[in-house]
Amino acid sequence: MKHGAMFITFEGIDGSGKSTQARLLANALRTEGYDVVLTREPGGSPGAEEIRSLVLEGDPDRWSAETEILLFTAARRDHLERTILPALAMGKVVVCDRFADSTRMYQGLSRGDLRDVVDQLHALMIGREPDLTLLIDMDPALGLTRAKSRQTSEERFEDFGQALQEQMRAGFLALADEFANRFRIVDGGRSPDAVAQDVTRIALEHMA
Amino acid sequence: MKHGAMFITFEGIDGSGKSTQARLLANALRTEGYDVVLTREPGGSPGAEEIRSLVLEGDPDRWSAETEILLFTAARRDHLERTILPALAMGKVVVCDRFADSTRMYQGLSRGDLRDVVDQLHALMIGREPDLTLLIDMDPALGLTRAKSRQTSEERFEDFGQALQEQMRAGFLALADEFANRFRIVDGGRSPDAVAQDVTRIALEHMA
Repeated sequence: MKHGAMFITFEGIDGSGKSTQARLLANALRTEGYDVVLTREPGGSPGAEEIRSLVLEGDPDRWSAETEILLFTAARRDHLERTILPALAMGKVVVCDRFADSTRMYQGLSRGDLRDVVDQLHALMIGREPDLTLLIDMDPALGLTRAKSRQTSEERFEDFGQALQEQMRAGFLALADEFANRFRIVDGGRSPDAVAQDVTRIALEHMA
Repeated sequence: MKHGAMFITFEGIDGSGKSTQARLLANALRTEGYDVVLTREPGGSPGAEEIRSLVLEGDPDRWSAETEILLFTAARRDHLERTILPALAMGKVVVCDRFADSTRMYQGLSRGDLRDVVDQLHALMIGREPDLTLLIDMDPALGLTRAKSRQTSEERFEDFGQALQEQMRAGFLALADEFANRFRIVDGGRSPDAVAQDVTRIALEHMA
């Protein structure tokens, strides 16, 4: 078994194919001989999944943006302590569908100008950034069509409409610019296989 | 109806009679013509009560101290937004059984030296301090006997034993010293009626 100890996250607008790509990358790295933990946020540990349910179920307005940020940060702390850091300590590769960048975007941008609060909370309680973040970038019109075709009761974040998705895309691209050392942008407007080929190549280059 | 708009909290070690005194004070102030909201932490709003259950039920070690502080802060933010601030805005008196001082004590002292993290989180997400905090002070031996006689499954914080309760008492007295402008110390080692008489007198002096 190869040792990697690398923390890779996927980000992007809804319907961009992040979850599919995270799964495909986990499989590809396993084929290459790496021990991979595939996880997601919000959630990724038993406690964090309970917090996820508390935040995402029920009336979307039941929590203020500030309370929601605190709950997501609590979930992330648990996920980091119980899943991510122990796996990295054992030399595994952690592939995670969404991480702190999603909070920077969704809470920091879409619900008031809370980016500064998000950043201060992150610095105080999380600290850790991914080693590599793959931004699956695509035209929001395409993302929206895909997202709607598989909408669940939990996916209220996807209820934004196209104008907001355009803002989100721009926001993610700005984050990629802000954290240029760890972000790589992948064109998600192609077949999943074509996207996965790029993703795997970029990840393997980083492991080398 | 008299307008008070005052935020009064009760603190003290387990078994000190905080909850009884909070209830008796609420009744006494209502008799005086004030509109009173009696509440408690953790909890005090529907969302915060759900977070309370998440934190206090199940294995005591299911959350790290840091995650617990984040969950308590999320609950406090919700309680503040949904219960405390709206009541104060309507000119009501808010009487609350425990508030941020309990987090400063229990998380800041008993589970690692996290007081600094507690304070930074409080400054960032809560900000508000009570107008008056009544510390019901008593000999831990007496408090422990009282606490054990009414122990429920939730009350794991009371499972500390006498040595730790002595530390807690000292910690609360140190907090009273640190925030001397809003703390008043009441001798809780007397009959509930005698304690309530002092508590009511102090509160009414502050309302005047």
